[in-house]
Amino acid sequence: MQPVEFIAERLVRFSDCDPAGIVFFPNYFRMLNGVVEDWWAHLGKPWTELVSKRRVGTPTVQLDTSFVLPSNFGDTIRFHLSVERLGTSSLVLQHVVVGADSARMRARQVLVATSLDNHKAIPWPDDVRQAINRFTERTS
Amino acid sequence: MQPVEFIAERLVRFSDCDPAGIVFFPNYFRMLNGVVEDWWAHLGKPWTELVSKRRVGTPTVQLDTSFVLPSNFGDTIRFHLSVERLGTSSLVLQHVVVGADSARMRARQVLVATSLDNHKAIPWPDDVRQAINRFTERTS
Amino acid sequence: MQPVEFIAERLVRFSDCDPAGIVFFPNYFRMLNGVVEDWWAHLGKPWTELVSKRRVGTPTVQLDTSFVLPSNFGDTIRFHLSVERLGTSSLVLQHVVVGADSARMRARQVLVATSLDNHKAIPWPDDVRQAINRFTERTS
Amino acid sequence: MQPVEFIAERLVRFSDCDPAGIVFFPNYFRMLNGVVEDWWAHLGKPWTELVSKRRVGTPTVQLDTSFVLPSNFGDTIRFHLSVERLGTSSLVLQHVVVGADSARMRARQVLVATSLDNHKAIPWPDDVRQAINRFTERTS
Repeated sequence: MQPVEFIAERLVRFSDCDPAGIVFFPNYFRMLNGVVEDWWAHLGKPWTELVSKRRVGTPTVQLDTSFVLPSNFGDTIRFHLSVERLGTSSLVLQHVVVGADSARMRARQVLVATSLDNHKAIPWPDDVRQAINRFTERTS
Repeated sequence: MQPVEFIAERLVRFSDCDPAGIVFFPNYFRMLNGVVEDWWAHLGKPWTELVSKRRVGTPTVQLDTSFVLPSNFGDTIRFHLSVERLGTSSLVLQHVVVGADSARMRARQVLVATSLDNHKAIPWPDDVRQAINRFTERTS
Repeated sequence: MQPVEFIAERLVRFSDCDPAGIVFFPNYFRMLNGVVEDWWAHLGKPWTELVSKRRVGTPTVQLDTSFVLPSNFGDTIRFHLSVERLGTSSLVLQHVVVGADSARMRARQVLVATSLDNHKAIPWPDDVRQAINRFTERTS
Repeated sequence: MQPVEFIAERLVRFSDCDPAGIVFFPNYFRMLNGVVEDWWAHLGKPWTELVSKRRVGTPTVQLDTSFVLPSNFGDTIRFHLSVERLGTSSLVLQHVVVGADSARMRARQVLVATSLDNHKAIPWPDDVRQAINRFTERTS
């Protein structure tokens, strides 16, 4: 069975690329962070609400990345996000980034719910947990 | 025996930080890339020569990162770089980033030598291999 | 008579904002550069063709900016681009960035056509000049 | 009479450069912002104190920039900062960025003191005003 995926498309812009004409890898992470931001909005739990109003942070604590093939200036790439596991205060996401022809990057990201007042881990709030569960229980 | 380390200090700047007041993780990677750039210059093989003149790229193919504790705006942090392994066309680096009191981030980075003309792997040029070996054979 | 405008919408993302929770001004310029990139594609003269294939650069030589009001994390802002003047090898663009309620930023940008082989100014190629003229001659 | 200058040196890094191999202009502004940050620290009024503790912001409201010549990957460039005028709640800075041989960029930047609670202009606190005056009254 295929995991449920959230898919976001990005254009590789001039500003993403380095003197070799390919995506500079820290810019992949800026893009990836934006895709995760879009996913939270898609869940109905935008960061503007979580971070700014409820003071709940979702910092990344582990990020393991394989860069498979370079992406070039002008490429359209697609980020496929799926949930590997939802823990008490952790969340494991899988990312696969694909270009026209082939995989470009794969990442496994572990996020943790924290209080932005002291940066300590907290359990996911119930409504957030439910929103994530509703996402993973969709049939694809 | 301690591995030989290249150490570089960085100030956490306003531009590195996010609305939570801590380093935005893609900016850690921009800093880390700059530390690796400094290390190549330290070896006597600066990227301006490797990349611009000799058309040898050193793209990152694997990057596994643990974010241990957040770094705050104004912190001074130190990047400790060591060589785990030098292969035919690969190079494995270990990074430990520490703040005043504690580890902030750990990363294992696999680089590969490539031709910038076709982005394919090539063996490390002899002079580059020797420079890396001279670094790792120092007594610390 | 209103000048013809190219309009592009952007979401103010977490990655655009600083510890004060508002857009960090260099990020406005990264966004603005992306809007100009979109405009060139809209003209049928994408940078991937101009820069990568034809070796024609369009560097910015003058950029005068007023930051009217801050933009906050989560805001949707709209970039309005219009052509003030097309010279032999120069191009003057006007940018107005607006939020829900009010102007946020205004900029006047002078670009110059250059050869990427020596970074010297060149006259706009005929087809590029025609594409810009077709844009400005539209009735809005 | 020469104005008093604060001078900061920067290396043009791989991460600062675009596919044309020269500094991507938004990165000049990130660097420039870091130089201004260093200048405030040099005055004894670091942003970590002003922004984080006293909730005084210093947003840029006007920024007029001439890009004279491109800077290349590997260049060492020097930022020369001087004070043009100190107003009740404004501050006008002049920046000249020079490479080995020639000017690269010139900018005139207007900053305003604001309360970070409502982003409204406030008079410069007395101790801040005195620190700026002590800087400009030095003989060079």
